[in-house]
Amino acid sequence: MFDSLKKELSRRALLHKAGYGFMGLGVTGVVGHIIKPVRTFAQAPSKEPSLPPEKKLGWAVVGLGKFATEQIMPSFAECKRSKLVALVSGDRPKAEKYAQQYGIDPKNIYNYQNYDSIRNNPEVDVIYIILPNGMHAEYSIRGAQAGKHIMCEKPMANTVEECQAMINAANKANRKLMIAYRAQYEPYNLATIQLAQSGKIGKLKSITSDHGRTLNPKDPADIWRMQKKLAGGGSLYDIGIYSLQAARYVTGEEPVAISAMMYSTPGDPRFREVEENVNFVLQFPSGVLANCTSSYGYSNTKRIQVFGSDAVLELDPATDYYKHRLVIKDKNGNQEQKIEEKNQFALEMDHLSESIMQNKQPKTPGEEGLQDVRLMQLIYEAARTGKTIKV
Amino acid sequence: MFDSLKKELSRRALLHKAGYGFMGLGVTGVVGHIIKPVRTFAQAPSKEPSLPPEKKLGWAVVGLGKFATEQIMPSFAECKRSKLVALVSGDRPKAEKYAQQYGIDPKNIYNYQNYDSIRNNPEVDVIYIILPNGMHAEYSIRGAQAGKHIMCEKPMANTVEECQAMINAANKANRKLMIAYRAQYEPYNLATIQLAQSGKIGKLKSITSDHGRTLNPKDPADIWRMQKKLAGGGSLYDIGIYSLQAARYVTGEEPVAISAMMYSTPGDPRFREVEENVNFVLQFPSGVLANCTSSYGYSNTKRIQVFGSDAVLELDPATDYYKHRLVIKDKNGNQEQKIEEKNQFALEMDHLSESIMQNKQPKTPGEEGLQDVRLMQLIYEAARTGKTIKV
Repeated sequence: MFDSLKKELSRRALLHKAGYGFMGLGVTGVVGHIIKPVRTFAQAPSKEPSLPPEKKLGWAVVGLGKFATEQIMPSFAECKRSKLVALVSGDRPKAEKYAQQYGIDPKNIYNYQNYDSIRNNPEVDVIYIILPNGMHAEYSIRGAQAGKHIMCEKPMANTVEECQAMINAANKANRKLMIAYRAQYEPYNLATIQLAQSGKIGKLKSITSDHGRTLNPKDPADIWRMQKKLAGGGSLYDIGIYSLQAARYVTGEEPVAISAMMYSTPGDPRFREVEENVNFVLQFPSGVLANCTSSYGYSNTKRIQVFGSDAVLELDPATDYYKHRLVIKDKNGNQEQKIEEKNQFALEMDHLSESIMQNKQPKTPGEEGLQDVRLMQLIYEAARTGKTIKV
Repeated sequence: MFDSLKKELSRRALLHKAGYGFMGLGVTGVVGHIIKPVRTFAQAPSKEPSLPPEKKLGWAVVGLGKFATEQIMPSFAECKRSKLVALVSGDRPKAEKYAQQYGIDPKNIYNYQNYDSIRNNPEVDVIYIILPNGMHAEYSIRGAQAGKHIMCEKPMANTVEECQAMINAANKANRKLMIAYRAQYEPYNLATIQLAQSGKIGKLKSITSDHGRTLNPKDPADIWRMQKKLAGGGSLYDIGIYSLQAARYVTGEEPVAISAMMYSTPGDPRFREVEENVNFVLQFPSGVLANCTSSYGYSNTKRIQVFGSDAVLELDPATDYYKHRLVIKDKNGNQEQKIEEKNQFALEMDHLSESIMQNKQPKTPGEEGLQDVRLMQLIYEAARTGKTIKV
């Protein structure tokens, strides 16, 4: 069942050996973020055949929650290859309101019952799934079966089995499947990866990454996150995944061993079904050890630190929407690195649109999402058993 | 054999319950560091009988390495209760040079052979052991047997058995034994403890602490650290102990579970006998999880972060000699806390002198040193076995 994952990881190992790092071909364009005036990922010179300048793919957004309506939908305005053309929602009046706001034809509003009929809509090329985690698999699979390419929010799904079924459905339909790992398209994170893998901070020794926020049981965007069936897991699935991702994309490696501890405040009704805190340590083949934390109890924290033999990189905030801050600390003191902020949502959506137009594998495909779900399950297992798990 | 440790820890638990935190009575004076103009620990009002203002105890320094000559010996000039009156060294010309510089009577220079005759020198009240770790036990025990009070550098000794023998020797001689945990006398660390335990950052959720430096195989101060017999352990014994200490003094609790991973660069001659990197996770009774790193391979790193439900404390550098920086990060942004720097070496030495004059247990007694050595041995065991160790 892990065949496609193994294939993807082996492709990556080859790219890594060839000096392309984890990011695949994308990272070559990123060097410019450090040395030269900043270019966006989408604007980076491409060796692929050029695309017609006016061409944009049509996107449908599934689920009109806070993240979709406040971050994703406004970001289409900054896309070069992607336009919002359809909405899928169980709340018709809400969908009509947004359709009017974004100039979407009301005939392109779908609900969860008639969702599959989207297959008959040639305006829609891509479906972006922004539903609770437990619904990702069903709506991604139905979307692929309707002949559409899929962008799916992270975490990809609740279980490895669901992830594999999503990959299989996309493959069978010959459609692209991408997981919305926005940090992998965000200029500050790309610069951090580049610095870490370029030797500029010496030999990479350790990474720490901490992601925490306070789960608000009164916020509709958080209520479903208290339910294991909908959320798949607790803070780890929601935000600890950023710590896990950071360790993987900064090293460009896959962990070989995992240890973990978990703690939820007893009696806190938010944590009846899902966990509050998970601290885990990952060991990578190069010897790098990564210390990661994940919490639904902290004050807002989104931080990555990379310890090299010659310097330390501090990215804090690391995985926010804007206002990132990158500092290099070495024997000469602290130097802040200024990098032009870009709309990471627009960059990631355009990446999928371009991957479709050029028939390329997106750089965060389904296999990337499956690997995180697999590793998160192993983190839970390590915490539960009190044993270091060999991956 | 752990009787005295249990007694000390149970004393601390009582102090903690009584709201005094880990620091014992000392912390009450520290509130002023945050709210009022800064007072040093030594200047804080004491409920103990006042001491004659002119009285200073006589100290002997054993071992004239870099740390002794560059940090400790110059710090006596800032002491109110401690004066340098004797030197113990295997290098007579070196000792004579420093004796002249510090106005020490040449008859108060000892070597390792005639060290025990220090018992006949009434000018010497306290002996400060600044030798390689593997020699701490022998020279502390001989010093106590010579009727002197003992300050010993951390780590206290290589093994738990040595630590216990040191405690027993001091008890038998009715002398004080203190471990030189300078961070526990340093104003920025005291302020961090106070903030963490006061509820000012909300409920304490997690701690991260990272300590790293590059071991220099050509530096005489580092050469002995590559030898297990002299160093006891690798980066953990030397600097990871600061991460461990931070987790303990910030929470004011003792860990109940430990997991760990370890890595040393293969073929690196520095790490034939001792380890390079150790990453460990501690769980505390309150549920706080601490992620700690320790490295001989990083660029210089001395950092503590404390994650509360309402705010995050960042102390970085945390355990330097001077130039600490404390920032509170919360929903209002980042606020730097300015605290007057004090000579932490002078404060810790005066603390022992005052403890002797007032016949009080110093706040970092032998039991504190033993606890760290015990926990470090369990960290190694957790890494070696790949199992979470219940403490």
